Amino acid sequence: MPERVTIWTYDWVPEGPRGFVRDIRLRWACEEAGLTYTVRTVPFDGRKADHLACQPFGQVPFLSDGELEIFESGAGLLHLARKSEKLMPRDPVGEARTLQWTIAALNSVEMVSVPWWFLEVTGAKDNGLTGWLKSRLDHMERVLNEREWLAADRFTVADLLMADVLRVTKVRYFGDRPATESYVTRITERPSFKRAHRDQLAHFEAADAVRSEARN
Amino acid sequence: MPERVTIWTYDWVPEGPRGFVRDIRLRWACEEAGLTYTVRTVPFDGRKADHLACQPFGQVPFLSDGELEIFESGAGLLHLARKSEKLMPRDPVGEARTLQWTIAALNSVEMVSVPWWFLEVTGAKDNGLTGWLKSRLDHMERVLNEREWLAADRFTVADLLMADVLRVTKVRYFGDRPATESYVTRITERPSFKRAHRDQLAHFEAADAVRSEARN
Repeated sequence: MPERVTIWTYDWVPEGPRGFVRDIRLRWACEEAGLTYTVRTVPFDGRKADHLACQPFGQVPFLSDGELEIFESGAGLLHLARKSEKLMPRDPVGEARTLQWTIAALNSVEMVSVPWWFLEVTGAKDNGLTGWLKSRLDHMERVLNEREWLAADRFTVADLLMADVLRVTKVRYFGDRPATESYVTRITERPSFKRAHRDQLAHFEAADAVRSEARN
Repeated sequence: MPERVTIWTYDWVPEGPRGFVRDIRLRWACEEAGLTYTVRTVPFDGRKADHLACQPFGQVPFLSDGELEIFESGAGLLHLARKSEKLMPRDPVGEARTLQWTIAALNSVEMVSVPWWFLEVTGAKDNGLTGWLKSRLDHMERVLNEREWLAADRFTVADLLMADVLRVTKVRYFGDRPATESYVTRITERPSFKRAHRDQLAHFEAADAVRSEARN
């Protein structure tokens, strides 16, 4: 029996982040690749030492795969991509392009979009990152206007990650970017995303019932 | 003759960023790995179409290696790490740990430290990212208090990148974090970092002379 991938996420989260918790990236990648996986949980309330031992920043997701344990959703995605050609081509050029766009999603787009969002939810006036984020989105619009996929002329893990980053960013708020919007819509219409999204919502809904019972 | 790695950076930058331009990451990795490399340049003044074709966000560095072209310093580092065991172990556990800490530097630490810096230099009052950055640095202090290296009990590309991220962050500004400070000092005392740093400074100093001549 092959080693199963285990994806670790929270046992519960409030309604706001449901559908956006980053375990969805790993679920989605496993769905795309046809990899069997199990979902296990750590408590949302309080960060226990064994959680910090697996994820030193007290976040989710992390994954285990046989003897391997990997935190950071980006690292988990690159690990899964090494297991399945569906997520990343095996030729050196295709692999390099997939790698560079995966890192670009993490370090050129999300490095601006998540702090922008952080300032918004913590009530900053005049979000000082708006201009920088708009500029990054402009670059992405130009790129996506010229091509259907980021790397290798086909869906890769780079599209999975970039679409997830852009989906959370709510691009429309920053103005009309039709190529980006159509890219995000097209990629998140994939059945594998829909399954991962549905399963994450169901996971946290089931947790509501348990939590409510525990309180009664 | 083996394919040489070419690292692309700007032809010139003002004094402020010298010693910090991210080509230093790729220079340093090549020095650690003993890889021969050439440095080539794109104009700092204005972003030409051929620059955007190589680096869609108009930044540096990017690298070429035979038929491969890769942008994003993190992707370049992972590419170089695949070429040399000195940068990343070859056993699956050591490789996975190196990968996760490389991504953590990019997406858990730098994702907060660079936007924090951006708000500072653009004159934000009450930098809204300070608390979040302190918390990330606290997590790093706890980790670095327990170990000498991030992965595999030896220097890897994850240490190279994390030390570069933390070096730029000026940890002391956020309070006393002795394990982090000693880690950054120890890693940046490596001869390979010193060579990369000296070479970057020399590269931009030489450009001053050319620039000044062109103006006379």
